[in-house]
Parts: sequence; C-alpha cells; structure tokens
Amino acid sequence: MIREDFRDFLPADVPADKEKEFLENFEKSTGGSGRLMLFAGDQKVEHLNNDFHGEGIPEEDNDPEHLFRIAKMAKIGVFATQFGLISRYGRDYKDVPYLVKLNSKTNLVPYDAKDPYSQQWLEVEDVVRFRDSSGLDIRGVGYTVYLGGEHEHSMLREAARIVHEAHSHGMLAVLWMYPKGPFVKNEHDPHLIAGAAGVAACLGADFAKVKVPYDKEGQPLPELLQEATTAAGRTGVLCEGGSRIDEETFLRQLHEQIHIGHSRGNGTGRNIHQRPLQEAVKMADAIYAVTCENKSVKEALEILA
Amino acid sequence: MIREDFRDFLPADVPADKEKEFLENFEKSTGGSGRLMLFAGDQKVEHLNNDFHGEGIPEEDNDPEHLFRIAKMAKIGVFATQFGLISRYGRDYKDVPYLVKLNSKTNLVPYDAKDPYSQQWLEVEDVVRFRDSSGLDIRGVGYTVYLGGEHEHSMLREAARIVHEAHSHGMLAVLWMYPKGPFVKNEHDPHLIAGAAGVAACLGADFAKVKVPYDKEGQPLPELLQEATTAAGRTGVLCEGGSRIDEETFLRQLHEQIHIGHSRGNGTGRNIHQRPLQEAVKMADAIYAVTCENKSVKEALEILA
Amino acid sequence: MIREDFRDFLPADVPADKEKEFLENFEKSTGGSGRLMLFAGDQKVEHLNNDFHGEGIPEEDNDPEHLFRIAKMAKIGVFATQFGLISRYGRDYKDVPYLVKLNSKTNLVPYDAKDPYSQQWLEVEDVVRFRDSSGLDIRGVGYTVYLGGEHEHSMLREAARIVHEAHSHGMLAVLWMYPKGPFVKNEHDPHLIAGAAGVAACLGADFAKVKVPYDKEGQPLPELLQEATTAAGRTGVLCEGGSRIDEETFLRQLHEQIHIGHSRGNGTGRNIHQRPLQEAVKMADAIYAVTCENKSVKEALEILA
Amino acid sequence: MIREDFRDFLPADVPADKEKEFLENFEKSTGGSGRLMLFAGDQKVEHLNNDFHGEGIPEEDNDPEHLFRIAKMAKIGVFATQFGLISRYGRDYKDVPYLVKLNSKTNLVPYDAKDPYSQQWLEVEDVVRFRDSSGLDIRGVGYTVYLGGEHEHSMLREAARIVHEAHSHGMLAVLWMYPKGPFVKNEHDPHLIAGAAGVAACLGADFAKVKVPYDKEGQPLPELLQEATTAAGRTGVLCEGGSRIDEETFLRQLHEQIHIGHSRGNGTGRNIHQRPLQEAVKMADAIYAVTCENKSVKEALEILA
Amino acid sequence: MIREDFRDFLPADVPADKEKEFLENFEKSTGGSGRLMLFAGDQKVEHLNNDFHGEGIPEEDNDPEHLFRIAKMAKIGVFATQFGLISRYGRDYKDVPYLVKLNSKTNLVPYDAKDPYSQQWLEVEDVVRFRDSSGLDIRGVGYTVYLGGEHEHSMLREAARIVHEAHSHGMLAVLWMYPKGPFVKNEHDPHLIAGAAGVAACLGADFAKVKVPYDKEGQPLPELLQEATTAAGRTGVLCEGGSRIDEETFLRQLHEQIHIGHSRGNGTGRNIHQRPLQEAVKMADAIYAVTCENKSVKEALEILA
Repeated sequence: MIREDFRDFLPADVPADKEKEFLENFEKSTGGSGRLMLFAGDQKVEHLNNDFHGEGIPEEDNDPEHLFRIAKMAKIGVFATQFGLISRYGRDYKDVPYLVKLNSKTNLVPYDAKDPYSQQWLEVEDVVRFRDSSGLDIRGVGYTVYLGGEHEHSMLREAARIVHEAHSHGMLAVLWMYPKGPFVKNEHDPHLIAGAAGVAACLGADFAKVKVPYDKEGQPLPELLQEATTAAGRTGVLCEGGSRIDEETFLRQLHEQIHIGHSRGNGTGRNIHQRPLQEAVKMADAIYAVTCENKSVKEALEILA
Repeated sequence: MIREDFRDFLPADVPADKEKEFLENFEKSTGGSGRLMLFAGDQKVEHLNNDFHGEGIPEEDNDPEHLFRIAKMAKIGVFATQFGLISRYGRDYKDVPYLVKLNSKTNLVPYDAKDPYSQQWLEVEDVVRFRDSSGLDIRGVGYTVYLGGEHEHSMLREAARIVHEAHSHGMLAVLWMYPKGPFVKNEHDPHLIAGAAGVAACLGADFAKVKVPYDKEGQPLPELLQEATTAAGRTGVLCEGGSRIDEETFLRQLHEQIHIGHSRGNGTGRNIHQRPLQEAVKMADAIYAVTCENKSVKEALEILA
Repeated sequence: MIREDFRDFLPADVPADKEKEFLENFEKSTGGSGRLMLFAGDQKVEHLNNDFHGEGIPEEDNDPEHLFRIAKMAKIGVFATQFGLISRYGRDYKDVPYLVKLNSKTNLVPYDAKDPYSQQWLEVEDVVRFRDSSGLDIRGVGYTVYLGGEHEHSMLREAARIVHEAHSHGMLAVLWMYPKGPFVKNEHDPHLIAGAAGVAACLGADFAKVKVPYDKEGQPLPELLQEATTAAGRTGVLCEGGSRIDEETFLRQLHEQIHIGHSRGNGTGRNIHQRPLQEAVKMADAIYAVTCENKSVKEALEILA
Repeated sequence: MIREDFRDFLPADVPADKEKEFLENFEKSTGGSGRLMLFAGDQKVEHLNNDFHGEGIPEEDNDPEHLFRIAKMAKIGVFATQFGLISRYGRDYKDVPYLVKLNSKTNLVPYDAKDPYSQQWLEVEDVVRFRDSSGLDIRGVGYTVYLGGEHEHSMLREAARIVHEAHSHGMLAVLWMYPKGPFVKNEHDPHLIAGAAGVAACLGADFAKVKVPYDKEGQPLPELLQEATTAAGRTGVLCEGGSRIDEETFLRQLHEQIHIGHSRGNGTGRNIHQRPLQEAVKMADAIYAVTCENKSVKEALEILA
Repeated sequence: MIREDFRDFLPADVPADKEKEFLENFEKSTGGSGRLMLFAGDQKVEHLNNDFHGEGIPEEDNDPEHLFRIAKMAKIGVFATQFGLISRYGRDYKDVPYLVKLNSKTNLVPYDAKDPYSQQWLEVEDVVRFRDSSGLDIRGVGYTVYLGGEHEHSMLREAARIVHEAHSHGMLAVLWMYPKGPFVKNEHDPHLIAGAAGVAACLGADFAKVKVPYDKEGQPLPELLQEATTAAGRTGVLCEGGSRIDEETFLRQLHEQIHIGHSRGNGTGRNIHQRPLQEAVKMADAIYAVTCENKSVKEALEILA
C-alpha cells in the first residue's frame, strides 16, 4: 500500500496510468522513508581508474563487479551507474535496484581549462525499453548538470527533458547539480548550493545531489544546508559523499545533514566501495540505517562492528 | 461570451477549431481588459537564490511553494514559471492560471563575459500534453529572447516556432525581449526598446516583456514608452517590475505606463514575492487592480491598507 | 489563362499537380509582366526601429499596420514580411499578396564584428499549413543568404531546401543575396554581384534581390547590371531600393535597371513606407507602373502628382 | 545488355532490385568503357562569376544556359551541377544525363583563412523524388570532401551517407576529394593524392575526382598517378581539368592519365565551357573520344578541326 | 551448440530474440576461445596511404583488395574496415567475417593542433540493413573514442548508442579507446589505459582496443596490463598491434599479453598486411593460433616457416 503522504512527492507530469508505478518506485527506493540512499557507481568514467586502484584501495575494487556485489548484498536505495555497465552485469544481478546515470565525462580536461559538457548518452526511451526487455529493476535515471559554463544551456535542456520523460514513464529522476567554471569562486558556498538546488526544483527533479556547504573556515556545518533544502522545495537534497573519510565522522555528518540540515538522503561511492566486500556491505548498511531507518549514529556504528 | 473587439488580438495562425480556446485564454488572462498582469516566478534559475534569501527578504520566500500560495490566493493574470516547478506543486494548485516559461539560464556567467544563450527546455507539444493529462489551467508559454549576441539566430528561431506552435494549440505566447551583449550600450534606451518590441511583433507574440525606457538622466518617463507600444502594433507591451521598490512609486509608475505609455500590462516578481504571504497577495491584488480593473493608484493603495 | 511563355519560369521541381498553382502565383505576382514588384517590410527586425521612427519619418510609419494599409491599397506584386507579423494582421488584410520572409536578424552586431547568421525561423511546411488554414493569399517565401562568412554553409543549405520545398508546394522563392564579411571589399562590385546572382540561380531561386552595382566612382550605372542579369539566367534579378531618395531619381534608376540592366523587378521598402499613407500608396503604384506595366518615368511621375 | 565485367563495379550496398538500374547508369554514363567523362558545371558557386565572365571568356559563357546547350549537343558522360540550376533548365533539357552536385561553397573566404565546410544542400531522397517526378535523366550525385580541416568529420559523415543512399537507389556516387588547410603543404603531392583516393574508396565512391599529381619540379607526370589509381581500388580516379590550357596539351595529358596513370576518366569544366558553343561541343566530344571511345590524341584532335 | 559459459559475455541489452544470434557471433568470432583476433584494416583513412605504399611495403599492399584477399585466406576473428570498402569488394568476398568500423578520420591534422573528432559515418541500422540485403557475414561494429578533448562528449554519446544498438540487433561492439589531447602526457601509462578500458566497460563494449602499457623506461611489460584487464571487467581488452616489428617479438608479446596480462585478443593491421599475400596469411594464422587456439609462440612460429 502506498502511503498517502508520498503524494506530495508525486509530480504532476506523471500521467494517471503511471502514478502507481512512480509511487512504488519512490516508496521502495526510499524504504518508505522519503529519503534516498544512492550508491554512486559512475566514477569509472568520471574519475577514470583513480578511485578503483591505488594506495589504500583493495585490489577487488578494481573489478567493476565489486560494485554489483555490494549493490546486491547491501541495503541500498538505488545503485547509480552507466547503462553499459548495467548491461554487462545485469543478467547476474537482476534484483539490484538500478538508477541509470545518463551522462558522464572523464576528468582528463581540468574544469579551469575548458567548461565541462557531459552530454546525454542514451534516451530515457532506451532505458524504458531496456527495463522492459531485460526485466531488470530499473527505477530511475540520473544526469549531471554543470551550471555556469558555455554548455549550461545544452545541459539544462537535456536535464529538463530527462526529468519529464522519466516521470512520463513512472520513473524517478535524480540530478547532480554542480556549478563550475571560471565564475564559480567557491563550490561549497551555501548560497550557491541553494541556488543549484533551486534550479533542480525548477527542472522538476525528484532528488538533487549537491556539494556539502562549508562555512567561511571551510567547515561543513549542517545548519548551512537549510537554505538549500528549503530552496529545493519538494525536491529532496542529497549530499555527496566525497572522498573517503573515517566511518564515524562520515555517519555523524550524514545524521546531521538529515536531522539538522533537512537533507533527504545522500549519494555515496568511494566511502563504500573502497573497502573489501564485507566491509563495504556493512558501511552501505550503516549509511542506509541512518538515511532510511532513522537510526542513530551509535546504532549505525554497531552495524560496522 | 467573447468580446468582439478581442478579435483584434486573435492571430491568424490560430486555426478555426482553436479560436474559441485562444480567445477564452486571452479573455480570462486579461480579466476582460486586454491587459495582462503576469506574476513572474522564473527567478530561481535566472537569479539562482539571490531573490529568495537574504537581507530584507522574508524566510518564507525561500520555499518555492510561497510563489504558488501567492498565485492561488491573489488576483493574477498568469503565473509564469518553469515546467518542472509546476510539475512539483501543480497537483495542489490546480486552479492557478499558468504560463510555462520554456527557457531559463543562470546568472553565473556575466553578460559581458559571454553572449547569453537561454535554450528552449521542452517543446510546446510537451506543454500541451502536460496540460491535457494533468488538467492544470495552463494558458500559454513564455520565452526569453536575447537580441544582439552570437546566439541571437538560435533564439529567434526558437521564439518564432514557440509562438506559432502555441497559437496552433490555442495558447498565448509571451516573449521577454532583452537586447544584450557588447554592442548594447544602454538597455533602457527608448529607441532600442521600441526595436525589441517590434521584433516581438514580427515573431507574432501576444505580449512582449521589455525593460522600462529611461530618459538621458536615467528617469523612467512614461511618455518614452510610446515609441515601443506603437512599434509593437497588436503585440501588447509589458513593463518589467524590476527590483523591489516602495508600493506607491511602483503602482504610480505602473498606472502611468498603462495610461500614458500605453503598455498593456506588466511582469512583476520581486515586488510581489519578497513579502510575507498576506502582504504579497495584497500587492498582487493592487497590481491587478491597476492593470486589469482600471483602478486608480489611490484605489489600489487602499487594497494594501 | 496562363501565358505560354511563362513556362520558361516554371522550375522542373514543381510537380505536375502544382504547375498550375505555381504559374498562377507567378502570373499574378508579376501582373503578367514576368517582373516582380516586391514591397519589402522585414526591416522591423533587420533595422530594429531605425526605419520607422525618427527625423523625416511620419509618425504613422511606426505602427506596423501602416505597412499592411499600404499593401492593401497599393498595387504591389508581393508584400514580404515575417510570418509573425502576417499572423497579427492577416485576418484584417486577407487580400494582400504575401511573401513570407523566413529569416531575419537584427543589426545590433556589426558585420565586421561577427560573420552574420540569419537562421530560418519556420519551415516551408508551416507556411503551407498557415496559408491553407487561414485562407491568406500567401504566394511565396523569401530568405536572405549571406555569402562569405563562417555560416555560409548553413545558409546555402537552408536556402536550397527552402527553394525546393516552396516549388514542391507551387510557391515562389525569392532569395536576398548579400556577400558579407572581412573578405568582401566592395559590396557594390558588379562582378561580385553577378557571382551572387549566379549562386541564386544554382539554388534554383525564382528571383534574387541584390545590391545595386556601382562603377569605380561609386555611381550606379545600369549597364553594370548586365553581367549579373545574364549570370542569373532564368532567375530574375531584383535591385534593392535602399534608403530613401527623391522620387524622380528613384523611378528613373528603376526604369534604367529594367530596360538597360535587364533586371526583372525591385525590392523596395523605405522609399515607400517612410511616407504618409496616401503618398506611400502613390509611390508604390508608380513603382508598380514602371516595373509591371511598362510605364515610362514620366507616366509614373504623373501617378505621384 | 549489361556487360558481365561491370559487376566488379557494382557495390554490395546496391540492393537486388536496384542492380539493373545501377548497372545501366554505369554503362550509359561510361559509354560502355567503364570510364567517366564528367562535364563539371558547378563553378557558378565554387568560383562565383570568375570562370564565366572576363578576359578571354566568350560572352555566351556568362549565361548558365550555355552549360546546358553544351551538355545537350556534346557527347558527355554526365553533366554535374547543382540541383537548383537543373531545376531551372531541366524542362528544356530533358535528355541531358545529370549528376546532382549536392554541396558547394563560394571562394570568398580563402582556404588559409578558415577551414572550408561545404555542407550538403539537399538529401539524396530529394534527388530521387525530383528524378521521378520530373522524368529527368538523373544518374547520380556528387559531393566534395575537404580533408584535413576542422569540418572533416562532418564532410566524411555526409559523404558516407550520400554514397550509401545513392547506391540504395541505384544511382552513381562521385566524390571530389581535396585535402586542404594549414597542414596540407602540397596539394599535388602524389602520396597525398593517393591517400585522398583511398579515402574515397573507404567511403564507397564509384568515382573520385582528385588533383593532378606533380613531381618535385611541379610537372604532371602521368606515372605519378599510379599510386593513387591503385590505392583507389575499384573506385575510379578522375583527374580534374583545371584552368584552361591549349587543346593538344589537354588531350595528351588526358590520354596519358588514362593509359599510363590508369585514371578512369576526368572532370572538366573550364576547358570546355570557356569557348563558343560549337567549339565547346567539339572539345567535349574530343575529351569523350579519348576517355570513353579509346581514341588517340591525334584522332581526338581531328574532332576539333 | 553455444557454450554455456559464454553467457557471461552476453550483455543484458541483447533482447531475448537476438540472444542466439549474439552468442553465435561471439562464438564464431572468437573461435570458441572468448578471445578476438581482429584484423584491422581501417588505416586507409586513419593513416591515408602511409601504411600501404613506401619503403619496405610490398606493392600489392597498395591495392585495397590485398586486405580482402588476406581476410579470405587467413584465419581471422573479424576483418574491421569501413562500410564503403566492404561495399566495393563484398560481392567477391562473401565469407569474410566483417566488423564495420563506423568512424574514421585522417591524420592530416596533428593531435596537438586540434582535439580530434572522428564522427560516426553511418547508423547501426544501415549496417543491419546492409547485412540483410547483401547476405554478407557482418558480425559487429566498431568505433574509436578519443577521450580528453573538446569532442569527448560527442564521441561518448555516439559510442554508447552504437554499442546499445549493436546489441539490440545481436551484433558485437568493439571500441577503440584512445585518450588524446594536451592533458594526456603519456598514452602508454598503465593507469590511464586502465581508465580508458573502464570507460569502455561503462559504455557496454564487448571488446576494447587499447594502447600497450609501458613501464617508466618505455618497456611494454605484460604485467602492466593487469590493471586494465581487471578494470575492464567483462569487456575484453585487445592490445593494438602497432607498427611492424619482427615476427617472434610480436608473437611473444602477444602471448604474454594474453597469458600474463589477461588481454582477450588483439587488433593487428600493419604487422599482417605489410607483407606479400602468402606471408601475410601465415602471419595472420600465427596470430590467430596464439590468440584463439592456445598455441605457444614456438608453435605459432612454425606456421610462419
């Protein structure tokens, strides 16, 4: 049964015959909490092999199947990765809840050398057909928008179309919202992040992944999120996980982002997959517990024990 | 019953089976006055969060639902905002008269650093399907044209198509006409504004939102509007509201724009929404009274009391 | 009855079931003379409001309806203006013979600052549907080609398609042929103009509007047109009217362009519309008399009296 | 009856139901010789009016109908010119064998100022429909590829599609292959020309028109063609005619290109049309005799006598 | 009968009714080994005529039919070349297993002068129709992705679509993965190559052709491949053959790449075709023996004897 209060999260461009499907995708992906634990696995393009091989990273992380193993064994909301990677492992990981990341770019060209353009790879229609023909549990699509550069207009257009087409098919749409380029002085400025979150709301996104806001000393105070989470309206704000830090700090910050900053979830990659399988699964479970099961930091840490 | 004299505002590209619908959209949106009070709510992209959070702005303005609450409670012609934002709140605000703003860009890149391109996000067909499937009261579409830069050609093409497609479906088309770029020395030059208004007429727009013309001392004399309102022909000229000023000055200028300058309405955002809900509603009502109900400034100020 | 000799002007890409319509459009638009008097009214975009308001221009010219009033009352071949402007006045000016100008750009960016691109606004199919649904007397389409710049390829392609699509629907196609850009030293060079006219022939145009050729002293000798009118083959060369000059000089030059230079008509805007209505109508009638009625300059001047 | 050995020239992407038509086009256009005499008449765009008017050029060459008169009266393989020009004269020249040149650019912008882009004007489908509705004898399409510049990718794509679509409809495809731009030091380098011919083969062209290779002293030795004619495989190499030279030299070079260099024809414009009609026809006949009738230079010169 | 364990290589976007066809293409092209011996014949565009004519290259290599003769007589997995070249020889080489290389660019513009863009020439749908109408044994498609430049976004999009469309039709997809441009300091860096291989996996490719990784002294140690072959997951890594070297070194490196580096094949052109036909066939057979028949270097060398 769909909770009545989730209707607040049902966009008006979901047609009547897709309402039930959309609400089920929302309910299941948020574990009934309205909050999304997004396991981010798109870095093999975004960061090439940097996040998967090197000092402090276990060898098994280099095999892309590591991500699928975690996604299968852990509690997660959705596993976000590229269409092609899902196509290569999907037959053996049918029950993983997927979110197809529709664009990606490499990190070879620095942001200050050229304004980034991460173009849409495939159409939402392709994803829908893939979902239907493969029987995979694909619940939504994702797309990164870089605001502030010469390609902003192309990416805003692609984002708007993707969100609307996803809703037309009863699927969730998550946007990664990152201001970039020579006129962006501080990506962690709370006011700028609130602006980016507001753009996601105007694009109709269900969730928007943003940078963590910092104060003037560079500290991630959870209160600073409030401007963004309010500005985003009914679009849920997800904080990005960032590079790997210690578990307790990670989980405490996550808890504060949700309960003080009013974020509606998180998008975490490296803090999960840069561990051996069992540890990675536990870390994902702990993150899920805080995000979707209203667990305290202490309770979550017990999962890791 | 449709007033006979509104047929002057019925463009020839509205097909016979959509004439009644177009004229009803026109009649209702202008309150039978032929003038449009457009409540502008597209700034969450255009200005990021600057207009919604900061000194002198009430906290409630940061929540995008504030715009919808005003639009529901106040007398307005149309509420202009992005498709995605309408999709997120539309189910709870079914009776608001909407105008879907089809393009938007952020303010991260200054106009003098790069010629602006605000690309169309969605097709008019998408809006029509959305209107029909959602039952929302969507009456028209809007689009900003930046004249004078390297993307002028793309925006003129998109504008011409949007206006014609809107008319083909019996909907209104409003263009925001802004000359920009290194060759535009003075955006408030009455002759330049008249040129922009004339371009809107050649694009077939029903209404064109323009800058307020200034004299050589930078004063907004209403007589200066006459060149533009004449040059626009049957396309109604809307003056933009601009940044927030005191109520009496605002309403007096509006009255003079209409009765001396022959504008056919206004597009106002910040002067309405940067107030607590009840005040915002009253201000919108006062603007509507001057615009569509032929009220005097004095009568309008009584609404605010 | 269609004159047999007009079959020379019937392009082979007019399909059999559209031949009669094309020949009627040609016959009517040239008054049976094979020559076209084109009343040019696209300057509200091309020159913004410069041609319509200012010293020496009557106030009534600022209202776009002035153009329609002239087009209705005067003898003209076709009135060339943008789709949108026709849509705004067409219901009241049903009998005017229209030619839809499919592209336009403003004059804000100087030609030496950036190579011009005037992109097609609407499809020929849109014009055909508009003609059929509105019942307006639309006889053809027009398009400006700027040769010599970085967008030449886009404009040649659009022009070729427009001409062919117009013919496919039995409509006339007129091209404005203007070499521009840093490598064009003299726009009035007779050899360059002949080249531009030849390009129009290769694009299949029915008529090509070109600059008036000058001799080395900058004088518009009519003999200099002969290279272009021969190079254009079966494509009729129209000389542009240019800025307003005295009536007798204008009519004499027009007469010589036709009878010495072998032009097949003219495209005139400012020399007609920058006058009060009655004068404008007489001037158009005089131009028509020389162009299509084989009248002498003296006879034409009597019309103005 | 189709000669069996022409099946070597039947590309595999000609579908079974178009094989007969393709082979007939090939047989007829090569006069049964497998070699193509292409009468090039696309210079009215490529060179503007330079090739048609000026010192040493007869007046009648300025009229585009001159080209059609030659094409009608002379023995030629195909007359290659733009769609639009064919459309203007086709009704009076129904029996001319046409090859529609699908792209062209002017010579206003020097190659060293900007990398050239000569975009496709019309689709192969348009040509097929035109052929079928007009009854004209259109046997193929042509397209120029400029290798080496920033638009190479667009032109390779257009060329590949044009060749395949032509074959799909049983028509011939001829490519003009010209390396250009700042990294091309010597357009007459035999190795570079061989490379360009090989690209044409990879694009599937039936014939490729290339520059004449020179030795280090700038002499056009026919042996130097062998690298290109071998590299081109089953794609026939056509040498371009270039600017007008004396008849005997022209015919001797042509004979050597074929019999020593193994070219499979030629593409000649100025050396034919820059003459009075009767002379032009004789010159075309002489070129045809050498190319397709295996005549000696002496025999061909007798035609001119 | 299809081996059960090949189902690991069956991507989930192959629809049920194409599974058998895909697995047969995979089985046949890998000779049942899961490894691909790709005979690369796309250099006539990529390197113009450099690889086919010059010192040390036999004359017969200049004729493109040389490639087809080798492909017919030797044991190979697939022969990869452009659509057009296949169309010119396909009727005489019906049994060759083809892989259509869908993009190519020339080497005229150096990589450091301009970021490369090798655009898709034809659609996968065109290949499918060609395969079906011609009866040729076309088993897959190929595409080169240049990472790191200003066109990366276009090429990632084209690659993603090509892979998915190939799978939708039961065909193999091979990607050439080459980081290029000013920010790529060392194309042979093992970590960079691993990144490129991972991108291919995210694009869903069946095989990815990459550069050979070097150690800091520029030596191609096979161990260095392991990062890439792991990072590529279920996408098989093919090492490129590069310029011609002696047979024993070539075969030993190939053997080590497979058995130490865990590559899943190779893409070799020059080391095969730059030999007289019989030698070329033997060399291809020897490469096939190591790649697909688990032969030792010694056994392979005996083939050459």
